Formats: sequence, structure tokens, C-alpha cells
Amino acid sequence: MSQNPSISWIESTQSITVESVLVADTKGSFVTRALPEIPVELAGIPGDRHYGLLRRADARQKIYKRGTMIANRRQISIVSYEECLEIAQRMNLPEIRPEWLGANLMIRGLEQLTLLPAGARLLFPDGTGLICEGENVPCRKPAKMIESILEQPGVASRFMPAAKKRRGIVCSVEREGMIRQGDTIQIITAHL
Amino acid sequence: MSQNPSISWIESTQSITVESVLVADTKGSFVTRALPEIPVELAGIPGDRHYGLLRRADARQKIYKRGTMIANRRQISIVSYEECLEIAQRMNLPEIRPEWLGANLMIRGLEQLTLLPAGARLLFPDGTGLICEGENVPCRKPAKMIESILEQPGVASRFMPAAKKRRGIVCSVEREGMIRQGDTIQIITAHL
Repeated sequence: MSQNPSISWIESTQSITVESVLVADTKGSFVTRALPEIPVELAGIPGDRHYGLLRRADARQKIYKRGTMIANRRQISIVSYEECLEIAQRMNLPEIRPEWLGANLMIRGLEQLTLLPAGARLLFPDGTGLICEGENVPCRKPAKMIESILEQPGVASRFMPAAKKRRGIVCSVEREGMIRQGDTIQIITAHL
Repeated sequence: MSQNPSISWIESTQSITVESVLVADTKGSFVTRALPEIPVELAGIPGDRHYGLLRRADARQKIYKRGTMIANRRQISIVSYEECLEIAQRMNLPEIRPEWLGANLMIRGLEQLTLLPAGARLLFPDGTGLICEGENVPCRKPAKMIESILEQPGVASRFMPAAKKRRGIVCSVEREGMIRQGDTIQIITAHL
């Protein structure tokens, strides 16, 4: 779609693109695997570990009793190529793969994805829309996963400080559709 | 519930309370009427004009083609006693009633409700939780309604500038429950 001048689009010197799309569809694991495209529904990505209109409150939602059914605003997690590279450099590793973080999208071309404010919209070429629900605060699970994959003891404890403010965002679905590897993304920060 | 020190609660010199709860259940009208309490479900307030998991994109959501089905993030609208008083004073009127604005809640005791950031949580005594989706930008409909109720020609054109940044917020439901007149509200701004 053409950019409407009355809307606040994020300007970027380069295109913001979808580097990879991934799904967490292995029972018992948060690790994702890359696909050419993923469908998104109001409840998230069908077959994905985080699919659902509702989810149980966990340690992240301290304002609710653990296990309380709440609206699922952590349907889709997004990391950026640039921030994953920064995390890797800070951990003295050659790379951090989106699969290890359980990310559903890795995007490229946006400075500081993790600082994108809650309420920002991500718009894809077929009209699919996601709502940024805020920063995905680093937790121990991917830290341990990276350590076990790389077989390097001590890597886990370096993940949390290295990933702080760089671990990407979580999103929910505003408009259903398809997201494809190579898609160009428009980001809107005006409230809607 | 007791306040967890690891969470960012909004501090207020006075309690933040629910002054009135209201529903828009008259066919063809956005005007609300006060009730002692309202149930809230994942899709909003049953019987209310804005109830639904999905809604059609309208003039506010310019990034989508008009009529596109999108997630309903405008389920519940909230105004504050203090901001309604300010709007009334700026319009030289004795009062602005929440009914005229189609508000579902009027709250009291919070400075500048309209500036509450998207992603803030409002928590009610029985555990009900709402998510702030951002400012409710003033539109012409309540302006015309106020003019016709007060039978004062010219009032409509004074509403939009007077209500800017004072017209309250829209919310969606995170945790289902009941909201009652007189409830005390806790507001959390940390991301969750």
C-alpha cells in the first residue's frame, strides 16, 4: 500500500525485511524451525507453541495469580538480525540463531527493534498486521538451550546480560494473513 | 492484592476509583447508561455496541482497507472525572457526562488518564484486568450528540479542541471478571 502522509511511519534508510519465518511445532520444545511462509490467525500461528486466544499467566505476569487464563499477547516473537549479531558479539560467539531463541520472525533493517513501543503496528505486503506488545525480556530457557547446543559450559550465564534490550519483541495479531520470507515490512507508531 | 515491589505501579496521592460503569446497549446509539456493575469477557462487555473479538477497520485505522476485519482493541472506553471537568470548563459548560462520550468507565483520582501509555494494565479488585490500547482521539459524533442534548448550537465545534488529549483511552480485556462502581484500581506500567 502507499504510505499515507497522515500516519507516522518509521523511516528507515534501508528496507525493513523478513529475514526468516519460523514455527515452534516440536512437542515439548520452544525451539523454532524455518519455513518459507507462515499463516497468522487472530490466535497466532496455527500449530505453534504459543497459538491461542488465551494463555495461562506465568512468572512474567506477576499481577495475576499463576495459571490464571489471560488474553494471549505473546503469540508471535520477533528478533532482529542486527540485535542477534550484537548479542553474539557480546557473548563472543559467531552467531545467535533465531531458532535458539524460539523466534517466529527474524527481521533486518530496523535499528533497535527491542525498543519499539507497545502499540506500534507491523504491516506486511498482503495486508497482514501485527501489534507490538513490548519487549521480550530475556529468560533462562534460551540461555540454557544455547549452552547445550554449543556445548560450551558458561555460555548460559553470559546470555541474560548480553541479550538485555536486544532480545526483540512479542506481538499479537491484528489482521490475519500470510507472512513470507523476503517480505518488506512497514512500521507505524501512531496510535490507531 | 498486595503490591509486588518488582512491578512498576503508578503511584497516586489518592485512590484511583471507578466513579461509574456504563454500557452502550441501545440499538443505533453510542450513548451509554450507568449500571451498578458490568461483566467483562475476552471480547468486551456483553450487549455493548463495541463487544466482539473482531471489528471492521474504520477511518481511525487508515493502515487497513475500510471494512477489513481486525482484532477489536477498542472494546472498552474510559474517561476520567478530572479530564471531563477540564473539557467542560474549556467549553464553558457545567459538565460533560460520560454517557455523552459513550464511555464505559469513568474513573477518578488519576492525573492525565489520556496520556497513559499503550500496554499499561488496569487491575480491579476481583482480578479483572484491562490493557490500555492508547488515546481515544476525539471525533465528531459525541460533539454533535452534546450539541443536540444541550440544544446549544455551536457547542459541537468547541468539543474537538477542548477534548484533545483529555478524551480518555480505549482498552481491551486481558482477564475476565466484573467491574463495579466504587472499585479501586491499580495501574501498572511495566511491560508484562
